[in-house]
Amino acid sequence: MIFGRRLFLLRKAMTETDLDVFIVMDRANTFYLTGFQGTYSLLMVTEDHALFLTDSRYYECARNSLPSEYEIVLQMHDGKNQLKSFFTIHGKLRVGFEPRISYEKFRWLGDAVRPARLVETKDIIDPLRRTKDEDELRCIRRAAALGDRCFQRICHEIKPGICERELALQIRRFFEDAGAEGESFPAIVAFGPNAALPHHQTSRRKLKKGDVVLIDMGCRIKGYCSDMTRTLFLDTAREKEREIYRIVLEAQTKGLEAVKPGLPAREVDEVVRQHIIGEGYGDAFGHNTGHGVGIEIHESPVLGPQSADLLQEGMIITIEPGIYCPRFSGVRIEDLVLVTKEGAQCLSKSSKQMRIL
Amino acid sequence: MIFGRRLFLLRKAMTETDLDVFIVMDRANTFYLTGFQGTYSLLMVTEDHALFLTDSRYYECARNSLPSEYEIVLQMHDGKNQLKSFFTIHGKLRVGFEPRISYEKFRWLGDAVRPARLVETKDIIDPLRRTKDEDELRCIRRAAALGDRCFQRICHEIKPGICERELALQIRRFFEDAGAEGESFPAIVAFGPNAALPHHQTSRRKLKKGDVVLIDMGCRIKGYCSDMTRTLFLDTAREKEREIYRIVLEAQTKGLEAVKPGLPAREVDEVVRQHIIGEGYGDAFGHNTGHGVGIEIHESPVLGPQSADLLQEGMIITIEPGIYCPRFSGVRIEDLVLVTKEGAQCLSKSSKQMRIL
Repeated sequence: MIFGRRLFLLRKAMTETDLDVFIVMDRANTFYLTGFQGTYSLLMVTEDHALFLTDSRYYECARNSLPSEYEIVLQMHDGKNQLKSFFTIHGKLRVGFEPRISYEKFRWLGDAVRPARLVETKDIIDPLRRTKDEDELRCIRRAAALGDRCFQRICHEIKPGICERELALQIRRFFEDAGAEGESFPAIVAFGPNAALPHHQTSRRKLKKGDVVLIDMGCRIKGYCSDMTRTLFLDTAREKEREIYRIVLEAQTKGLEAVKPGLPAREVDEVVRQHIIGEGYGDAFGHNTGHGVGIEIHESPVLGPQSADLLQEGMIITIEPGIYCPRFSGVRIEDLVLVTKEGAQCLSKSSKQMRIL
Repeated sequence: MIFGRRLFLLRKAMTETDLDVFIVMDRANTFYLTGFQGTYSLLMVTEDHALFLTDSRYYECARNSLPSEYEIVLQMHDGKNQLKSFFTIHGKLRVGFEPRISYEKFRWLGDAVRPARLVETKDIIDPLRRTKDEDELRCIRRAAALGDRCFQRICHEIKPGICERELALQIRRFFEDAGAEGESFPAIVAFGPNAALPHHQTSRRKLKKGDVVLIDMGCRIKGYCSDMTRTLFLDTAREKEREIYRIVLEAQTKGLEAVKPGLPAREVDEVVRQHIIGEGYGDAFGHNTGHGVGIEIHESPVLGPQSADLLQEGMIITIEPGIYCPRFSGVRIEDLVLVTKEGAQCLSKSSKQMRIL
């Protein structure tokens, strides 16, 4: 039923942008429209028809599991001739495609649909995916709650001698054992000066007294992601670390308070960034304040200085400022947030008070 | 040193194809050229210069870890103005790009390099990656050997009542505990009729006596993949299953025997496919016979009916025919293979004799 509704909304958007056909090849969009999780398919939607082409590896699976709105077709070779036979008959249609597909696929598609014309169509499924429906919210809430439980649990493992990789493995295994599909991305675990690298690659560094501990992690439930970052200290925190923790937490709180439907997303970034700049750490916060989360760990909207997105009720976003001091230490605090009529509803419940283990 | 050599070979290929600049955005190509494993960077190579642009999340990490041949540049905003300032000065250069990048990035790039001309350049890094050097072979051999050890170990876990997902988790954990970076892809574990789905999504189905057990798995060592499939039976195998096992094994053996440098890859597919067709199961073998393996689990060459690739000494490929009988059972047997002067050297050592546990 949910898939029928999404197909209906897609067709509505197609009419509004004057498209005769829309081709879906992107994996996340395919999952959104059909629930299919395989690695290869091509979906062709017209006003009154929806074809799902896949190869022999997935054909049986698709026949057994896809919503009834879709006619499942076994692809012969690379499927090009099957498309050609349709488009040769129908002539000069306007065919929308997703600009996220590879240039290679774009060229293949242009050849397959001739004499129809390909039209770059970025904003047709993205706006639908940007605001979450009840089913999606339920998955994301569950994923966020599991993230909190995981964090609580692994805090007990944060002891001198454990290495970053071990802690990251424990995070993954907690999620797997708790019934999640797995992590939404490989957890970032950074000790000491490694926390100064915003996307540090988890290493074999062992935890020492006096180290900062930065953990950025999330899981996936029924295809939907969670995302949260917390920063802790082992044994002690230096003066400057206390200072940057305070500033990041203040900035993050201001960001949360700024969130409301209708606001340009870049204004949330602006509030957060100005606070950090005002405290003299502007150069130490290089990344965006946040991003949308859903089927993908990074999706629309963008909360950054260049963003043209508007916040809307039902969006799931992150608010995650950080201050990174190379070769010294770093702090990031990130919550997963639902945009509601009233403002921001935090889905991450783990405490953000500065904590020294 | 290895990265210096790869950069040298890239520049040689650039000269041969008359390119002034080559832009690398693909993750696997970036890893091949620099060892960088982050999720974002842009590499710009000219005859006498190699620039590595990345954003604040990875800048410090890149400065600490990249080969000295590359000048690391911190990207401002999306980096477009930094490219523009270079290309506006240098005028009408020929700029190669990888057709695997997204259409979106292609458009962005076209704008950034103006008035230079973008040239689609598929065959510039692929041919280098296709044949493996000693360092790469060492990683792949280790990954294959770990795959064999994993298979031996998890055979003890194949007992009535275990579910597909549990077995898949044990595979992943074996690899993680043994020091691999993880799996090269999520293991496919298919029991009974699920084995008839070549890319079955591992489920909670429990193993029953009389079930076939298909396991397709691999791990990653220092960025390089392994890949192997074995099919077993629990308690008993039906007559038709014995037959398809025999045919698949014969076809796979013929495929291995056919491998030699200089042979068109499609001819290996042809030998394997003809054997299966001759036995009356042509319709039950829909996928290609194999693919290249390296930094990516699927890379060049393709061993299929449409392939234009030639086998070369030093390639790593899979030979993996299968017969899939919907709603009944399925068998696939896959080895990871090094193409040598003499023919095929099997890196997968696990027994392929039919086995009933």
